[in-house]
Amino acid sequence: MSKQPEVDADRLLASVADFATIGATPAGGVNRQALSLEDRAARRLLAERALARGFTVFQDDIANLFIRREGRATALPPLLIGSHLDSQPTGGRFDGALGTLSAFEVLEALADAGIETERAVEVVAFTNEEGSRYSPGCMGSMAFAGVGTTSDWASTLATDGAQLADELATTLAALPEAVVRPIGHAISAFVELHIEQGPILEQEDVPIGVVTAVQGTKWLEVVFSGVAAHAGTTPLEFRKDPMSAAAAAIASLQSSVMPADPEARLTVGRIAAEPGSINVIPRSVTFTVDIRHPDAATLAAIDQQVREECTAVGARWNCDVTISQRVDMTPGRFSPSMTETIEEACNALGLKSRQMVSGAFHDALFVSRLAPTAMIFVPCRNGISHNEAEFVTDTHMISGARVLLKVVESLAIIGQTV
Amino acid sequence: MSKQPEVDADRLLASVADFATIGATPAGGVNRQALSLEDRAARRLLAERALARGFTVFQDDIANLFIRREGRATALPPLLIGSHLDSQPTGGRFDGALGTLSAFEVLEALADAGIETERAVEVVAFTNEEGSRYSPGCMGSMAFAGVGTTSDWASTLATDGAQLADELATTLAALPEAVVRPIGHAISAFVELHIEQGPILEQEDVPIGVVTAVQGTKWLEVVFSGVAAHAGTTPLEFRKDPMSAAAAAIASLQSSVMPADPEARLTVGRIAAEPGSINVIPRSVTFTVDIRHPDAATLAAIDQQVREECTAVGARWNCDVTISQRVDMTPGRFSPSMTETIEEACNALGLKSRQMVSGAFHDALFVSRLAPTAMIFVPCRNGISHNEAEFVTDTHMISGARVLLKVVESLAIIGQTV
Repeated sequence: MSKQPEVDADRLLASVADFATIGATPAGGVNRQALSLEDRAARRLLAERALARGFTVFQDDIANLFIRREGRATALPPLLIGSHLDSQPTGGRFDGALGTLSAFEVLEALADAGIETERAVEVVAFTNEEGSRYSPGCMGSMAFAGVGTTSDWASTLATDGAQLADELATTLAALPEAVVRPIGHAISAFVELHIEQGPILEQEDVPIGVVTAVQGTKWLEVVFSGVAAHAGTTPLEFRKDPMSAAAAAIASLQSSVMPADPEARLTVGRIAAEPGSINVIPRSVTFTVDIRHPDAATLAAIDQQVREECTAVGARWNCDVTISQRVDMTPGRFSPSMTETIEEACNALGLKSRQMVSGAFHDALFVSRLAPTAMIFVPCRNGISHNEAEFVTDTHMISGARVLLKVVESLAIIGQTV
Repeated sequence: MSKQPEVDADRLLASVADFATIGATPAGGVNRQALSLEDRAARRLLAERALARGFTVFQDDIANLFIRREGRATALPPLLIGSHLDSQPTGGRFDGALGTLSAFEVLEALADAGIETERAVEVVAFTNEEGSRYSPGCMGSMAFAGVGTTSDWASTLATDGAQLADELATTLAALPEAVVRPIGHAISAFVELHIEQGPILEQEDVPIGVVTAVQGTKWLEVVFSGVAAHAGTTPLEFRKDPMSAAAAAIASLQSSVMPADPEARLTVGRIAAEPGSINVIPRSVTFTVDIRHPDAATLAAIDQQVREECTAVGARWNCDVTISQRVDMTPGRFSPSMTETIEEACNALGLKSRQMVSGAFHDALFVSRLAPTAMIFVPCRNGISHNEAEFVTDTHMISGARVLLKVVESLAIIGQTV
């Protein structure tokens, strides 16, 4: 006869610590980029622990990894919980991993208590959420939701030159224990636990964030092209200097977009000049622009502003400009019945919660197109993430996992369909 | 009995074409960076042609390459002519190579005519003039002039990660035929032929430029440091974004320094952001600043302006800034008696010439600290150099070599000491 399932706090913390050793950086973060050796090592560790517990392991053609604990009604679509295991090049140990490992802890807690759920519960680790080694991010959840297909990105090259198709094949082959399953199977719902990656929960001392919506995101690549020439002998009137144009465009956008709208985000994270010699006026300068806003129309307006400013600056500096869109994620709203379920779980556990909009995009944004979806946020120190200094307290990790378990109980045990 | 020495135009043009095949790029330029495989291949070809003509070949400890044709008075310090063989990563076929190969043509012309010079004439190819693979440039001539020593730069890393000491040893070992000679031997004078790398001679339709001075150059490396954080979740007031600071600083300097002073040059040729992810506010942004001016005091003032602007902008964007000097070359004046000798040669050959200041720095700038020095400029199309499109007409190449030969006749044959 079964008892009340409980999160094993020590096991959860040990599990987070174990995975943090895979791709560990000297500064205490992780470098476990998508489809890398480190990513494969993390997938293997999770699969081995799953098989040891008698769960089944699946992969689909973009290497999304699924751990299934069977339910009473095997024909019912499973409840999906989880996140991702890949990280930024200098990322933290919690972004993605905490949600995936908390979900696995939930499966183990159910097994420890001998609970038979109505429907199966599956843990997922989506492929390449970060998008740092291969752009765009969220490839795994996009493919799962039918927004894109593996073949769309097969020829994509990593920042280190490796082609996606090759790294994908190697990653799939590295886990022969996993049954390969067609991509995008039916699910009853999806719940993703994640760190907030912002300062709000910590500042308000609220342990749980209930995410009602996700900001929209656009990624642009801007290339200014001029004429490479000698730094010392080329007078100003003869210059077509794309670096001057790029600097003027970035400076102008940074001093206008965010100051004008507190909900807007504009970030230039990557820039390069060709040929990149100290004493050569560059032939071209390429940079990326990441813009975000919870309102689709405002997001489109900022995108337009970036294009117009770059075009105007290019003309002023006698440079050509080309702007290409790399990512376009419309803002997303989550299912109210799902957010209610999370709030009820928090109440039942006596944990304060607050509703919030996510500034980061997440796999849940795409999965919400398939089934009712919601996210549980836990606070991270100083709101810092995508950084080796990323930190979450043990208490917050444990609270988050307990809320996730409680949500799974209401969504899977009594077989509630939302 | 000897006849009048003459430049062999076909041989000179063929020689320039032969060397342009070493490190040739698809776009018709060359990538023959200092101490690379391609640089070694060019050194070998020149050494083999020298030995075939019965000249002797020397190297010093920084791999400056010397081709010596003995004179009557073997004890007299030799007359030095030449330039460099290394190129920018996407450089032209004439910058450096034309001066080195014209000097070698002069040696062959003297040999063909059976001329016995009073003092020996030596052709030099100085190591790493460009400074693109290893910074700073002009290492070979700096070491030759005692401004620096090989050990100062031994641990310098190439843009491709190779350490200078290793590449230097490999380069020296690749030419066992060359006698190793102590660095910085006495010379009577130095004459360097080079392309103008600017638009003036072509625009005024003057075939020969007589260089009276070289602009001073300073290379700075600026590093703005902030805090890496998530692009989507970090509001403006929490950001310490070094990219915003770098863009503001570059934009401000580009819109002030050169517009205010037509003789000033300011170029940002290299920039990088760490960690360089599209969706991460950078931890740091590093860029180079190349500033030039013919007046030492004004050059120092611009350097000060760059430092003050970067410091002010860093404070405005809550970022730290560190500025380090990579190169500091004071403006140089050449010997009037040498420039007169070049002007007399032009008159004797019926070639128009004009005096000018060099916007580029050259090995001659350093050698002028040791002995009377001057430079001969020939026009290049549209003033473009450090670019695969760099081009010099056959006529201008031949005229330049004939002027150099005439100058050598007056400086070496009658044993004139200047």
